[in-house]
Amino acid sequence: MKDVAARAGVGLKTVSRVVNGEPGVTPDTERRVQEAIEALGFRRNDSARVLRKGRTASIGLVLEDLADPFYGPLSRAVEEVARAHGALLINGSSAEDPDREQELVLALCARRVDGLVVIPAGDDHRYLEPELKAGVATVFVDRPAGRIDADVVLSDNFGGARDGVAHLIAHGHRRIGFIGDKARIHTAAERLRGYRAAMTEAGLPVHDSWVALGSTAPDRVRSAAEALLSGPEPVTAIFAGNNRVTVTVVRVLADLERPVALVGFDDFELADLLRPAVTVIAQDAAQLGRTAAERLFHRLDGAPGMTQRIELTTRLVPRGSGELPPVN
Amino acid sequence: MKDVAARAGVGLKTVSRVVNGEPGVTPDTERRVQEAIEALGFRRNDSARVLRKGRTASIGLVLEDLADPFYGPLSRAVEEVARAHGALLINGSSAEDPDREQELVLALCARRVDGLVVIPAGDDHRYLEPELKAGVATVFVDRPAGRIDADVVLSDNFGGARDGVAHLIAHGHRRIGFIGDKARIHTAAERLRGYRAAMTEAGLPVHDSWVALGSTAPDRVRSAAEALLSGPEPVTAIFAGNNRVTVTVVRVLADLERPVALVGFDDFELADLLRPAVTVIAQDAAQLGRTAAERLFHRLDGAPGMTQRIELTTRLVPRGSGELPPVN
Repeated sequence: MKDVAARAGVGLKTVSRVVNGEPGVTPDTERRVQEAIEALGFRRNDSARVLRKGRTASIGLVLEDLADPFYGPLSRAVEEVARAHGALLINGSSAEDPDREQELVLALCARRVDGLVVIPAGDDHRYLEPELKAGVATVFVDRPAGRIDADVVLSDNFGGARDGVAHLIAHGHRRIGFIGDKARIHTAAERLRGYRAAMTEAGLPVHDSWVALGSTAPDRVRSAAEALLSGPEPVTAIFAGNNRVTVTVVRVLADLERPVALVGFDDFELADLLRPAVTVIAQDAAQLGRTAAERLFHRLDGAPGMTQRIELTTRLVPRGSGELPPVN
Repeated sequence: MKDVAARAGVGLKTVSRVVNGEPGVTPDTERRVQEAIEALGFRRNDSARVLRKGRTASIGLVLEDLADPFYGPLSRAVEEVARAHGALLINGSSAEDPDREQELVLALCARRVDGLVVIPAGDDHRYLEPELKAGVATVFVDRPAGRIDADVVLSDNFGGARDGVAHLIAHGHRRIGFIGDKARIHTAAERLRGYRAAMTEAGLPVHDSWVALGSTAPDRVRSAAEALLSGPEPVTAIFAGNNRVTVTVVRVLADLERPVALVGFDDFELADLLRPAVTVIAQDAAQLGRTAAERLFHRLDGAPGMTQRIELTTRLVPRGSGELPPVN
């Protein structure tokens, strides 16, 4: 759009008016914009027309794991928006494997989905460029696209983690551990950044041994938690980087004599019934899915303009585990 | 197949041999079977050929709610089997609405899926007959098809519920309540039947007020549980008909002074960390999905023969809540 505006020597708003057939543009200006569009190969997305014709349309959803409870409400929300637009949902799991993500995305494109909602596993999405040029609308959710420009809907991972760690510090903790997902995953990196920011703001050091990133497999998380809790200066509190990590840390802490404070990123079912009930930084998975899907259909309806980065706030839910005092 | 066999005057096995090109059939018999097949309009399913040609194929999965944790592992298992066969998964939620189920199934058929795995919301699937005749393989899972003949993979809902209630009786309970899903849902009806069987086998009466069927919405379940637990002769134990019911009953019991025993149908995450930990009748959701999907691809590979009803066993997992003694 920007290129079209520059080439035609008009503003973005004028390009938008021409593309959407709105009034207020002189015939000469319209001609110049149309010529610029043709010269640059800019194609209006026509998927919306397919929808309007009443053909059964479809959109694709690529997520990490259909079996992870975080993705249930997200998928369902995407589905409901798709349904309201007369579209079916085709989905699949990348299993956190960039190659599998690419294979799945391209298979969905080969099936001529009108658009894609992608929770990316990889960090290089240039393979999508031909599809985007061909008009496949794509919105990323939970994590941004890598090396391409695309709409994205995220939670405030940095701010949420910072708030959670600051909450532990406010309850007297000085030695706080962080157990998170693999470092190359955007959400894990952002939450770690939030942890470090809260510690720095409080003037606290972060020992290397207090940060444990890796797979969310229960065995890995258990070992990491046990390491943080042993040694000469064990941590008195743990910040768990996502719901898969939190449930395993809860199991480890249940076997301990001394109380250890815990704040987890992501709310989860029954967190309030555990003893102690688990304090969390809640993000709204359904809202992430809904927002991304609405943005997608907005694009399919021909919405022009810059790509957007939409960030949803998180919410601290104090329940007991995050308010335990430090016990050395 | 049966009609073909009758018309040709041969056995089912002979029809199967002819259809699959196996040896051991005389030319005269083969001719008679082929004539019967043509006369009756019997069509071998050709979807498998599409798969073999290497085109990206797809199967549809219709379930109740993508956001229900029971369906996460089931969906993922169906997806993994589909993936192993080079097929994409297209899925959708019926929201327990028979009309929406039908709309979704027919939309998937219109998209030319090769096959369907269906967790039915309705109890009349005659609308599928033209699709089945056209070769869309269909396997029902969790609940059987209504008024059509189709493969189905089920858990032993009756036996599981009977075992769970017998377990409560063995721990001294005489007044046991049953809170289940809507009566028209197959699994709810079967589990209720199991509850009644266990009570009858122990010579115990079942008061009408002890059985509460209806939606699994938290408010409804909470009211039902509170009604069972009040009055002149409150129950001393509850059998919860599925995981959505169980988690709400756990919440109600957490607010009570006196201990009430609980056994729930379906295992759920963190059941073992609640106090008391929750005794369940576990069914293997992933195995249900895997078995159904494998049956589907077996059909797509041209497997002839009668429809099958495959029943998976359930497993009692004693954890504490089901072993509490009765307190009047």
